[in-house]
Amino acid sequence: MSAIVGPQACLSQAPDLQPFVTDYRGLYVGQAAAVVLPNSTEQVSQVMAWCHARGVVVVPQGGNTSLMGGAVPEPQGQAVVLNLRRMNQVLAVDTVNDTLTLQAGVTLNAARNAAEDAGRLFPLRIGSEGSCQIGGNISTNAGGTAVLRYGNMRDLVLGVEAVLPDGRIYSGLRGLRKDNTGYDLKQLFIGSEGTLGIVTAAVLKLMPQPTASSVALAAVASPAAAVALLGEAKKTAGQAVTAFELISGPALDLVLGYLGNVKSPFEARHDWMVLIELTSGASSESLDQTLMQVLESGLDSGLVLDATLAQSGADAQTLWRIREEISDAQTRTGGSIKCDVSVPLSRIAAFIEEASAAVLALEPQTRMIVYGHMGDGNVHFNPLRPADRAAKDYLTAFYEPISRQVDSLAHAAGGSISAEHGVGVAKRDDLSHYKSEVELALMWQIKKALDPQGLLNPGKVLPAPVAAQA
Amino acid sequence: MSAIVGPQACLSQAPDLQPFVTDYRGLYVGQAAAVVLPNSTEQVSQVMAWCHARGVVVVPQGGNTSLMGGAVPEPQGQAVVLNLRRMNQVLAVDTVNDTLTLQAGVTLNAARNAAEDAGRLFPLRIGSEGSCQIGGNISTNAGGTAVLRYGNMRDLVLGVEAVLPDGRIYSGLRGLRKDNTGYDLKQLFIGSEGTLGIVTAAVLKLMPQPTASSVALAAVASPAAAVALLGEAKKTAGQAVTAFELISGPALDLVLGYLGNVKSPFEARHDWMVLIELTSGASSESLDQTLMQVLESGLDSGLVLDATLAQSGADAQTLWRIREEISDAQTRTGGSIKCDVSVPLSRIAAFIEEASAAVLALEPQTRMIVYGHMGDGNVHFNPLRPADRAAKDYLTAFYEPISRQVDSLAHAAGGSISAEHGVGVAKRDDLSHYKSEVELALMWQIKKALDPQGLLNPGKVLPAPVAAQA
Repeated sequence: MSAIVGPQACLSQAPDLQPFVTDYRGLYVGQAAAVVLPNSTEQVSQVMAWCHARGVVVVPQGGNTSLMGGAVPEPQGQAVVLNLRRMNQVLAVDTVNDTLTLQAGVTLNAARNAAEDAGRLFPLRIGSEGSCQIGGNISTNAGGTAVLRYGNMRDLVLGVEAVLPDGRIYSGLRGLRKDNTGYDLKQLFIGSEGTLGIVTAAVLKLMPQPTASSVALAAVASPAAAVALLGEAKKTAGQAVTAFELISGPALDLVLGYLGNVKSPFEARHDWMVLIELTSGASSESLDQTLMQVLESGLDSGLVLDATLAQSGADAQTLWRIREEISDAQTRTGGSIKCDVSVPLSRIAAFIEEASAAVLALEPQTRMIVYGHMGDGNVHFNPLRPADRAAKDYLTAFYEPISRQVDSLAHAAGGSISAEHGVGVAKRDDLSHYKSEVELALMWQIKKALDPQGLLNPGKVLPAPVAAQA
Repeated sequence: MSAIVGPQACLSQAPDLQPFVTDYRGLYVGQAAAVVLPNSTEQVSQVMAWCHARGVVVVPQGGNTSLMGGAVPEPQGQAVVLNLRRMNQVLAVDTVNDTLTLQAGVTLNAARNAAEDAGRLFPLRIGSEGSCQIGGNISTNAGGTAVLRYGNMRDLVLGVEAVLPDGRIYSGLRGLRKDNTGYDLKQLFIGSEGTLGIVTAAVLKLMPQPTASSVALAAVASPAAAVALLGEAKKTAGQAVTAFELISGPALDLVLGYLGNVKSPFEARHDWMVLIELTSGASSESLDQTLMQVLESGLDSGLVLDATLAQSGADAQTLWRIREEISDAQTRTGGSIKCDVSVPLSRIAAFIEEASAAVLALEPQTRMIVYGHMGDGNVHFNPLRPADRAAKDYLTAFYEPISRQVDSLAHAAGGSISAEHGVGVAKRDDLSHYKSEVELALMWQIKKALDPQGLLNPGKVLPAPVAAQA
């Protein structure tokens, strides 16, 4: 192996392996025989061919920021972790075709910066953008706060290069918006969490840079009022509606306590709030006017109870910081049950009411940390331990029953039990409950067609096949 | 079979079969044992299971508007044509979730009307919209004139229901904008031209209805000037740029001759023109101003030679009619070599110059009918016989060498030899030249995984496997 990547790029001592076999929350710890850090697609191909010839398991890894244990090896075994961080070159920026071609190990931040330097926007926006990598964003079909306007990573990828389980290279680095020459093979590698191939490079879509943005936080009467306000915002501002994020009262309490130096934007305490961002190529004044119009009409109709419009970039940043630090505030507090669900917008309000009632029936002191990307139907529904209860106690007692309840209610509402976080190990076995037999069989048919030996990221995504599918 | 669908819905007499085994241009005539017209997913499933048990080949068919012979059976054989036209129900319109759920046999026009009745837009816009069906649009990943703004059919589909080659039903009729629970199986059925499953229903995205539009025709100095003008339009009007269609001088000559009663919008004759459409939720006056600004800056910089801005809806319709009738004008004239290519925008001008020179070197009297969706990199590059030469002569002499030249130049420019028309029979064997061995092998791996008996739409899309891939 070190003959392929060089001795410096092939680690096999336990202390060197440790950061690569442990996920960033420290919840999943795996075992590996080696970590390799190739610096080219050719090297990835050679490593994969070497492993294929010997039946060695390979776990592809980008920034190792998966919340689902998707990027670390299984607890037992002799896996090779193939980390792509050295493949961090931006290969081409094309401002006529509006495309960005880059290696998989470029971080999301670096990709966004490369776009900005060229006067364009790469719109994917997620919490881990400083360390997550484009290859991982593709493999997990990353989502985030701008999906409402720009779509998921799948919508932002025009071309993919990937190394197959036997080491062959699929070269699909095309920057075309229309190409109907046979099966769209790149789709296989988007969102399959490294189980079908290792993404080594990609061509991404660039967007015009918005010249103006307008941000407001509005207290709303209920989740149903939030949905109605979103309808109003879409009617008034059309595609300018870029983000529409829900924040529950307990989520605001938690994050303000965590941040310490940030004051609540409202005099009164509210049960539900939404962070709205409009962006466009128009002027900020006219965008502020449009957002004011949405908010005023909401105040008139009773959907909106109070609202604050950011008067400056700094104001807008503060509002966004409140939203973005909710996740860290939970991690620091400990004892939260993370359900990343999506439901059709027409059923999301009822879902939130029902799921909240179900959780509070189990443990009335639970803090209902509910927030996220309501505009695209995705909420992070994260019941948190009561302040006076130990995290471990709470999770032992409630992790199973609460997540099962929440997931089942989302599923019953036509929703998804993993909107953007993916499956990894964490949700793998849950798929048996929520996917049909046909869906699971199809997934295995594809897996076996592309990776008959089961060498790529085994134990992830696909629940163990039942006899009929084996 | 008639036990499943009823005797009225199972045709087997030659005259009854004829319209179902002939493509609409009359270029591909196949043979079938029967045509069945199921009226439910359950019936499609039963028909498919029946055929699967007996090794009978099935050709799924929607509106039968394929330009590539994709929807008719092979010339020899005992295929069953499964036509979906009776499955023409709109199942649900959800204006909160902005989704439209419908059966596969709903025509595109009917889908657009259902959206409009609900105050929404379903943005797919193609020439055959009166007769093509949603199932076919999905199976071929249809494109058209609004891809620049709204994407291809793949981008507009949230959920798919499909019957598999063994009759099992894949039920993916979900209306979610985020769902990362395993492989995105619907992608298998989008753009695979009925070779992996029969699409029976879908959930489509709806968009806000634009309240205003502004349309202009501009004469430009060259294809390069057209690309530069597109850049200006995107910079000035952002996402309002909805269509940006190229029209060559000979294409305008042809269509004006064909229409008879329509005058050229310009005093002088020009070699290249572009039809630009902006749409938005703003007012038409402000949109007209924006478009005027784009055109005036183009006139100042010499990109634009002359321009006419539609002063009314009727004006706009006339301009669009000129663009839309080019296809029919060619069909009536006969003797055109249809190359539906796409290239990155940064290379499209050079491609058009090179490919035109190559064609004219072969036959200098060829009329260069070049038009289409330049904004998304797609041009219909359709060399047409000289006026005094018989269609058959011209095609016999030049079809092969010209299409090979044009396709090769598009491929060399990082482009596609079939941007939106798909593969069908017409381009099937060409894929052997322009797809890598790995791509062809992957396509066959997927085909064999889902349809090991090769029962669904055989002879389409996939070129015969070479020994190593068999």
